Amino acid sequence: MLDETAVRLDDIIAAVKKCGDIILFVNDAERSMVTKAGKANFVTKYDMAIQEALKDEFEKILPQAQFVAEEGDCSKGAGQGYAFIVDPIDGTTNFIKNYKKSCVSAGLARDGQMVLAVVYNPFTGEMYSAQKGGGAFLNGKQIHVSSHPLSEELVAVGTSPYNEELIDDTFDLAKTLHRASYDIRRSGAAALDLCDIAEGRCGLFFELQLSPWDYAAGSLIVTEAGGKVSRMDGSPLTFDKGGSVLAGNPRAYEDYFKLPGHLERK
Amino acid sequence: MLDETAVRLDDIIAAVKKCGDIILFVNDAERSMVTKAGKANFVTKYDMAIQEALKDEFEKILPQAQFVAEEGDCSKGAGQGYAFIVDPIDGTTNFIKNYKKSCVSAGLARDGQMVLAVVYNPFTGEMYSAQKGGGAFLNGKQIHVSSHPLSEELVAVGTSPYNEELIDDTFDLAKTLHRASYDIRRSGAAALDLCDIAEGRCGLFFELQLSPWDYAAGSLIVTEAGGKVSRMDGSPLTFDKGGSVLAGNPRAYEDYFKLPGHLERK
Repeated sequence: MLDETAVRLDDIIAAVKKCGDIILFVNDAERSMVTKAGKANFVTKYDMAIQEALKDEFEKILPQAQFVAEEGDCSKGAGQGYAFIVDPIDGTTNFIKNYKKSCVSAGLARDGQMVLAVVYNPFTGEMYSAQKGGGAFLNGKQIHVSSHPLSEELVAVGTSPYNEELIDDTFDLAKTLHRASYDIRRSGAAALDLCDIAEGRCGLFFELQLSPWDYAAGSLIVTEAGGKVSRMDGSPLTFDKGGSVLAGNPRAYEDYFKLPGHLERK
Repeated sequence: MLDETAVRLDDIIAAVKKCGDIILFVNDAERSMVTKAGKANFVTKYDMAIQEALKDEFEKILPQAQFVAEEGDCSKGAGQGYAFIVDPIDGTTNFIKNYKKSCVSAGLARDGQMVLAVVYNPFTGEMYSAQKGGGAFLNGKQIHVSSHPLSEELVAVGTSPYNEELIDDTFDLAKTLHRASYDIRRSGAAALDLCDIAEGRCGLFFELQLSPWDYAAGSLIVTEAGGKVSRMDGSPLTFDKGGSVLAGNPRAYEDYFKLPGHLERK
């Protein structure tokens, strides 16, 4: 078994930048979309193209690693050994609508734990990265979570748009958190919401249901920036199957569990 | 009375860019904030500085015009004659939190009707402008609203954060619109939400309570891009006092009024 120090974070950053910048040359995103199962669950030919390009690059960097990604055969999961966990375009609906809030999310897990992470927004040039034990960075500058209580923070809200049965719980909780904080934000890209926590722009993030590729990279960036991230019942994240995600600066995260009307969920 | 053709839109664009770029040199936004009346209702020394700078510039451009702005004496209102209606920083909470979604919003009204409009996001360099009858532009390129039904659009939601009594209605309607569309977005800057309608990134926007400086410029940019904008009961906007705002592409706007559970409000 290789040690992850054999993989250079800079190589992953370079690969993600090269593949992610494909987005910038697109002018037909809306026309290229294909609906997957469920409401507003889209994939475009660019999701596929970026994913294939990343797969090629990552095979050169660490050929032993599995490749677990949104658009493809995800049955293998990220279990023992190395696995890249990849969302080629997080925020696909934003991409289709030219909302300019989308990113490439790529993490490397070893034996089910995240060890390297990169999230890149080609529209802004913001490149977030983290290595386990080495801190979190935005364009090479170290970043930290904020330190305010929940009442003095913005809360990023995920709406789990592919899960109709979660709408009532999602909006009840969004309203509760709106009352308990400055206000809510809804960006439509969970990986970027997690980076907003890491950088201190928002103090708390929740979404009732996400897939591993949505939060794999972002979760390491949050913890390496000094934040907390878990399922919404406080249990550890896993990367073999999806579930809820709660992330925040340590103070706002603790405030969440004391909040009347908060919701706990695996 | 001067005709507004005596005022060059390019002069207003240049003034707004010059004053708005003050934002880019700020690194202490959080420390500079002062709370006004109400929850999360902030003003920073930069709101004041940009407003004063804009006032000086606009006096040079059209000395006869009144100057109606968020941070100051708004008792005069925008009635007869010319009036600049200005929000020096729309999205002040975003500015304080470094969320990078804030803008300068400046419109010129003549006898209560908007005739020129500029909205500028210094973080992205996006400069939106419109002149009555002359179309709407982003960085000099003409823009148009989208043409999809509500069911195939993103909906930008305003939470009226200074109006506690509107929270239940706001979140009920946000949930209704989430079910009726692809998803909601919440940016925290109403003027930019209106520009997102004008550019077709979102298909509908609502907020139950806004002030004239929040929507004066954006409303002209929407109509000049081919969109509809009004109070949430369909009545015309006025710029002498605030109220609700509904904006959209014509198809999504019409769909709103047919939607079970929609809300009508002045």
